[in-house]
Amino acid sequence: MRMYDLIKKKRDGEPLSKDEITYMVSEYTKGAIPDYQMSAMMMAIYFQGMRDDETAYLTMAMAHSGAMLDLSAIEGVKVDKHSTGGVGDKTSIALAPMVAACGVKIAKMSGRGLGHTGGTIDKLESFPGFSTEISSEHFISQVNKIGISIMGQTQDIAPADKKLYALRDVTATVDNMSLIAASIMSKKLASGADAIVLDVKTGSGAFMKKQEDAIALAEAMTTIGNHAGKKTIAVISDMDEPLGFAVGNALEVKEAIETLQGKGPEDFVTLCITLGTQMLMAGGIAEKEEQAEDMLKKAITDGSALRKLAEFVEAQGGDATAVYDVSLLPKASIVEEVFSEQEGYIKKIVCDEIGVCSLLLGGGRETKESRIDLAVGIILHKKVGDYVRRGESLATLHANDSVKLAAAKARFLQAYHFTATPIEKRTLIRKMIR
Amino acid sequence: MRMYDLIKKKRDGEPLSKDEITYMVSEYTKGAIPDYQMSAMMMAIYFQGMRDDETAYLTMAMAHSGAMLDLSAIEGVKVDKHSTGGVGDKTSIALAPMVAACGVKIAKMSGRGLGHTGGTIDKLESFPGFSTEISSEHFISQVNKIGISIMGQTQDIAPADKKLYALRDVTATVDNMSLIAASIMSKKLASGADAIVLDVKTGSGAFMKKQEDAIALAEAMTTIGNHAGKKTIAVISDMDEPLGFAVGNALEVKEAIETLQGKGPEDFVTLCITLGTQMLMAGGIAEKEEQAEDMLKKAITDGSALRKLAEFVEAQGGDATAVYDVSLLPKASIVEEVFSEQEGYIKKIVCDEIGVCSLLLGGGRETKESRIDLAVGIILHKKVGDYVRRGESLATLHANDSVKLAAAKARFLQAYHFTATPIEKRTLIRKMIR
Repeated sequence: MRMYDLIKKKRDGEPLSKDEITYMVSEYTKGAIPDYQMSAMMMAIYFQGMRDDETAYLTMAMAHSGAMLDLSAIEGVKVDKHSTGGVGDKTSIALAPMVAACGVKIAKMSGRGLGHTGGTIDKLESFPGFSTEISSEHFISQVNKIGISIMGQTQDIAPADKKLYALRDVTATVDNMSLIAASIMSKKLASGADAIVLDVKTGSGAFMKKQEDAIALAEAMTTIGNHAGKKTIAVISDMDEPLGFAVGNALEVKEAIETLQGKGPEDFVTLCITLGTQMLMAGGIAEKEEQAEDMLKKAITDGSALRKLAEFVEAQGGDATAVYDVSLLPKASIVEEVFSEQEGYIKKIVCDEIGVCSLLLGGGRETKESRIDLAVGIILHKKVGDYVRRGESLATLHANDSVKLAAAKARFLQAYHFTATPIEKRTLIRKMIR
Repeated sequence: MRMYDLIKKKRDGEPLSKDEITYMVSEYTKGAIPDYQMSAMMMAIYFQGMRDDETAYLTMAMAHSGAMLDLSAIEGVKVDKHSTGGVGDKTSIALAPMVAACGVKIAKMSGRGLGHTGGTIDKLESFPGFSTEISSEHFISQVNKIGISIMGQTQDIAPADKKLYALRDVTATVDNMSLIAASIMSKKLASGADAIVLDVKTGSGAFMKKQEDAIALAEAMTTIGNHAGKKTIAVISDMDEPLGFAVGNALEVKEAIETLQGKGPEDFVTLCITLGTQMLMAGGIAEKEEQAEDMLKKAITDGSALRKLAEFVEAQGGDATAVYDVSLLPKASIVEEVFSEQEGYIKKIVCDEIGVCSLLLGGGRETKESRIDLAVGIILHKKVGDYVRRGESLATLHANDSVKLAAAKARFLQAYHFTATPIEKRTLIRKMIR
């Protein structure tokens, strides 16, 4: 088999076989196929696409390019959850303890990621001492003991995806549905869960700006997952304005804790209940949606979800007292209100611009080497559909640097668009794909 | 400027500017843009194409990526000729002396090339001692003295093209009209001639199988040349059967000599006169086609073209007595007839298969490192439209190895297709593009 022939085949619109895709991925991973052939292939795929079966073969080949995590030592159905990411997305921090409190085993690998804020792991590091650099043995025994553990993604999980993504990132070949789906799902499949619930975001703060693209990606991913024998469900959720009110690492952790205390923002609570319901059903804990919803709500009202978070933080070396006393979380030195210069109904909040404000404050990573400031961020007071008077506070900015604060503030005001006529609140849950 | 943005722009179907193309070529040539980005760009160009102006910018950037040969020390109009290559294409060896004998200055760079037979330089090395490894000073003074010189293409002519072609060759991005045209024309423009006559072949033995593709390539190249201020004319000629009767290096030299002796095959003579006419007119030696044709025919009948070939061979260290005594050219040890197993009119000769036979005999290069056997090859006795009886000789094979001979012979017979009904001879000259 020659990579040249595979490139030509794909270039000419012919599908690649399972053997061809497996060969390509394994030879590329070990360095026997050079980057310059693979990038030509990626561009050919960008133009010619991949069929469902090709996408599934690619995903499986990437999943098998490194270690496949074996979770068989954990009793019960292991359910994983993945979000395509957005602004203010602290979902896992509240959702995982809620679901674990109901009895579903959470054995999750997570990442740091580049972006407006850190990834779930960065956010969790707001608990002093908390670490996700734990061994597989620790990971498995913790899940068996307390029902929940989150581990940093190890180097040997889907190395083909790591190498391929880095290449796509510099050759303008990221934007292809099959390649995106295969990238996400290869890591999920290698991470060993039995079922996967996907939160596919859509809107100006999401990777998929258009809802039809989010649906296509969700369909591609559920097809792959179910094809691989893992029950896979996707929820399409709105990311055209930030999720909840908090944007920034420690601020989001605080909001997640408040949610587990029954004081969460309406949209965020809805998302946690919706995703949690699917996880409970996939995990065989509940048979009907209403039953699952009741269980999740009870886990909040009876405090078991909050206790599960504390147990989880403590089991991974973190200071669990911060769960009950959020003043122990990282705090910014400058806290300043942003007052509205306009009056009217909020028509739109340019969501990714709010993300950029968080990044400007120091809350995210511009490059892999950037250090994140966990304390900084934004607490919104107003969202789409709210009426705002001139001079009313739109948000509170948390900063550690007055120059960065000024830059973020200027940008923040630009992100809000007003109208004189009433505007409906956005609908969070858009579609469910099984 | 970032290469990433240029790839994305082209991927999305937007034209690249002159500055962008110049940046891309110069940074790639010096190694500042990696192969994996350039191969993604080449694949994006494969799908999105390039406009005429982009193609011209690319050509100029590649031409200027290394040395630009300065032929201003040569008096008169310097006319270059280029063929896209085919089976039995010994044109330059007869044409260059014919045109030089009429007074057009021939200062030509030529290559070895991969393929069924060697390139012009390999063929010329059939003259014992002949060398194209001469200095620019020797080259220029020889043209001033005897009106003709052929020099091996130096490393520093269009290095961007060399690097880019090697990359395209392994990433399935060769087959794009703009890229092919830019590759050929960048070398021609860097080689310093004032006018260029292109012989664009079409048919089963040519790079461009379809005539419409050959015309498109010819149009792309003449547009580039004329845009660059060089008078450029293209002749579309048939390559659906071998040119003339001889295929193989020394055998083709012999046929070229016979042509200069007035004993050339009809199709080959027609091609030399057609191309020569354009060269004489571009060189300002003749005003009308009939006048040019007469001059070229006279150069054959009065022996001046043959003498020019001898002068040329001698000036570059070759044994010119071989021009007058072809028995001094390399000779094969085994000479064997191939007899027809069928009867009828020859309907088709699969032209590239005849090329493969030459390659099997050892007359071409499979890799850059292959050594060519100058003596071997094929002399056809029958061409399309000829009537052949069973047992009649179709061709003579010249070999130095009986195993290779057997392989070539079996393949040779497969290349001939017969029919019971009379077939017209093929038309050699298809179109002229100025």
